[in-house]
Amino acid sequence: MTKSSMSRRRFLQSSGAAALWLPTTVKGYTASEIQALYVDGEMQENISKHELDTPALCVDLDLLEANIATMQATTRSNGIASRPHAKTHKTPVIAQMQLDSGSIGICTAKVSEAEAMYQNGIDEILMTTTNVTPTKIQRAMNLRQNCPGFVQATDSPQNARLLSEAAMAMGINADVVVDVDPGGHRTGITPRQPALELAQLINQLPALNLRGLLCYDGGSQHVKGFEQRKNQTLERLAAATETYDLFNQSGLSTEIFSGGGTGTYNIDHETRGLTDVQVGSYVFMDAQYVDIGGESDEEIYSDFHTSLTILTTVLNDQYEGRATTDAGAKACTINRPWARIKNETGISYSSGSDEFGSIRYDENASTKYKVGDKLELIVSHCDPVVNLYNQMYAIRDDKVEAVWQIAARGLSA
Amino acid sequence: MTKSSMSRRRFLQSSGAAALWLPTTVKGYTASEIQALYVDGEMQENISKHELDTPALCVDLDLLEANIATMQATTRSNGIASRPHAKTHKTPVIAQMQLDSGSIGICTAKVSEAEAMYQNGIDEILMTTTNVTPTKIQRAMNLRQNCPGFVQATDSPQNARLLSEAAMAMGINADVVVDVDPGGHRTGITPRQPALELAQLINQLPALNLRGLLCYDGGSQHVKGFEQRKNQTLERLAAATETYDLFNQSGLSTEIFSGGGTGTYNIDHETRGLTDVQVGSYVFMDAQYVDIGGESDEEIYSDFHTSLTILTTVLNDQYEGRATTDAGAKACTINRPWARIKNETGISYSSGSDEFGSIRYDENASTKYKVGDKLELIVSHCDPVVNLYNQMYAIRDDKVEAVWQIAARGLSA
Repeated sequence: MTKSSMSRRRFLQSSGAAALWLPTTVKGYTASEIQALYVDGEMQENISKHELDTPALCVDLDLLEANIATMQATTRSNGIASRPHAKTHKTPVIAQMQLDSGSIGICTAKVSEAEAMYQNGIDEILMTTTNVTPTKIQRAMNLRQNCPGFVQATDSPQNARLLSEAAMAMGINADVVVDVDPGGHRTGITPRQPALELAQLINQLPALNLRGLLCYDGGSQHVKGFEQRKNQTLERLAAATETYDLFNQSGLSTEIFSGGGTGTYNIDHETRGLTDVQVGSYVFMDAQYVDIGGESDEEIYSDFHTSLTILTTVLNDQYEGRATTDAGAKACTINRPWARIKNETGISYSSGSDEFGSIRYDENASTKYKVGDKLELIVSHCDPVVNLYNQMYAIRDDKVEAVWQIAARGLSA
Repeated sequence: MTKSSMSRRRFLQSSGAAALWLPTTVKGYTASEIQALYVDGEMQENISKHELDTPALCVDLDLLEANIATMQATTRSNGIASRPHAKTHKTPVIAQMQLDSGSIGICTAKVSEAEAMYQNGIDEILMTTTNVTPTKIQRAMNLRQNCPGFVQATDSPQNARLLSEAAMAMGINADVVVDVDPGGHRTGITPRQPALELAQLINQLPALNLRGLLCYDGGSQHVKGFEQRKNQTLERLAAATETYDLFNQSGLSTEIFSGGGTGTYNIDHETRGLTDVQVGSYVFMDAQYVDIGGESDEEIYSDFHTSLTILTTVLNDQYEGRATTDAGAKACTINRPWARIKNETGISYSSGSDEFGSIRYDENASTKYKVGDKLELIVSHCDPVVNLYNQMYAIRDDKVEAVWQIAARGLSA
């Protein structure tokens, strides 16, 4: 071993060790240090979130739990179920919390996400995207072989035949739902007759088991104003209900009729036949959803709390009217509206620069930051932000209660 | 062990195994399968890039090597050096290629990036951001203790004193450069007298070793039109050269005067005193840089090749004039201009949806895709795209030659 590589090895061994010089009042925990202190689901030390190295992704447990409880109570009283979408959190611990609260399963957007969820203890999974390549179909069938609760979407006769062939070759029956296009023409098959014919084909294919349909109206979720959103989504889902009726009239299963999202969770039960909502963002909320307005408040969608924040540190305060932080586009994305500083007014934040966040003060700014100050950002659009981080700190009363692995981070395949 | 967890364990063991059902003509390699085939720096099988599971991040080795050679030849003939910025690639293998070509070191934006580079064999590192918190200063000093080639930026007297205290407590001398603001007021100290006074303070502090200055004119890198870009950056760097003169007149080190980037790499040598360019994007190029125009072509910046692409698969082709792929915002970011389909015309791509890419055909589209077809995207803005992926496939003549770990991915702290 060369001298240089010995030195490197010592560095690797020592870089997680306690710091010599740090003031005792500020420990300053790196991601790996915090991880090492989280043993058997318990933090071994009492750590304030303000001691986390930044940028850090944090979730407030009281708010997260309240969001999950609100979703469960509302859907139950509306006579439907929730099947939350794991593409938002990519975190098995949160999926389990959702199931424990009464959700009937989770959704995933990609087969790699589904694999990560199953590998981490989640058994009821609806994959909402069609697998089209041989490798992805094979992976889906491998998963189905082990996980009886795995259901996948299909949206063409050609694809249904491939799925059946693959399932048959493995000696299994695979559960599928028909993905019906709500009019966005992004994924799914045309409702009514084409969807019915696909369902009839599935019913005849030897190794497929039809479970129903899904129709995700993504285009309505962020429509501003409750009445406008309600009118649009009910109109767009009407063809899915007609399809549901055609399935029933033909004796085909409609056990699953999944749709909806965070923006329409308290509207979707008015779509006749719908069984469950594929809600994702409600667990965290974000600035994009806050701005759509709710049933009780036209301006602010306040049904759910903004539980997800990014902790960031001020790096430069020496120029008038502004400051620079350590959370730029690589920590916040460039989604709009920009992230918002929690509990402050008169201060704007932007993350247009890859490495740095920019703070600008209005005349009536509620505070002025100094170098080293930490602030908390309400995220702009939660799904792609979560996809940047390997771990999430679960916080209660400003203390780190858990460190959660974002097991499906980066799994877009 | 429960029956369910036994089944899960079998799944974990089998999910990397060879598929039973796949047509023999299309293997379809997942990320973990490819990784397993890359042993001791050699691929154990001959794999076409078209067999990669998607989305996949690919770099064309011939183009990457040409970009590195062009940068080296141009800077050498202009009498300056290159100190490429690893914030772009976050990949130690590429940093090593740059050093092997003659670069005098690499830059990093964050201390965690610097740690990852050092842990993977890189010894000459200039960290261009100031470390302001106790924990980050401690990490920088731990790194400096093991890596004599580590130099860090500082931009305030208060920070310089903290760095000196921390170095002294560890019994080391730490190398620093003064970060000078080019006028963007984002980071850095005001040029001329304030920067000079900071340099004089550093020179007097017991445990710091002044190595010079840096001035990164990020705001000029994407100015369209070569002459306009040249005029702007030379004007904005004039104060840095005056600062350089003041350092020299006071007998202070100007061994390092680092600045510039991919947009100004063939302009920066006209800034008197400048020693090296902190070029990042030139290794990959992207749609944003292509559009700024070059010295020889006002419309297209063709000095470097677009070596970095995202491989994606068509999921839905059943609606007129459009198609849907598996690479959305989580695989491409939402930077503009949108990613471009390589070698095609009359087809636009957008990744505004988190999970899906949208293809739209003009009347004169060069091709129409079918479900399962793979296409290659020239990325919009390379830095944040690389930051989404754990690994990059190095391709030569359409074959996978290597699998590179993006070791500093997600390291924004």
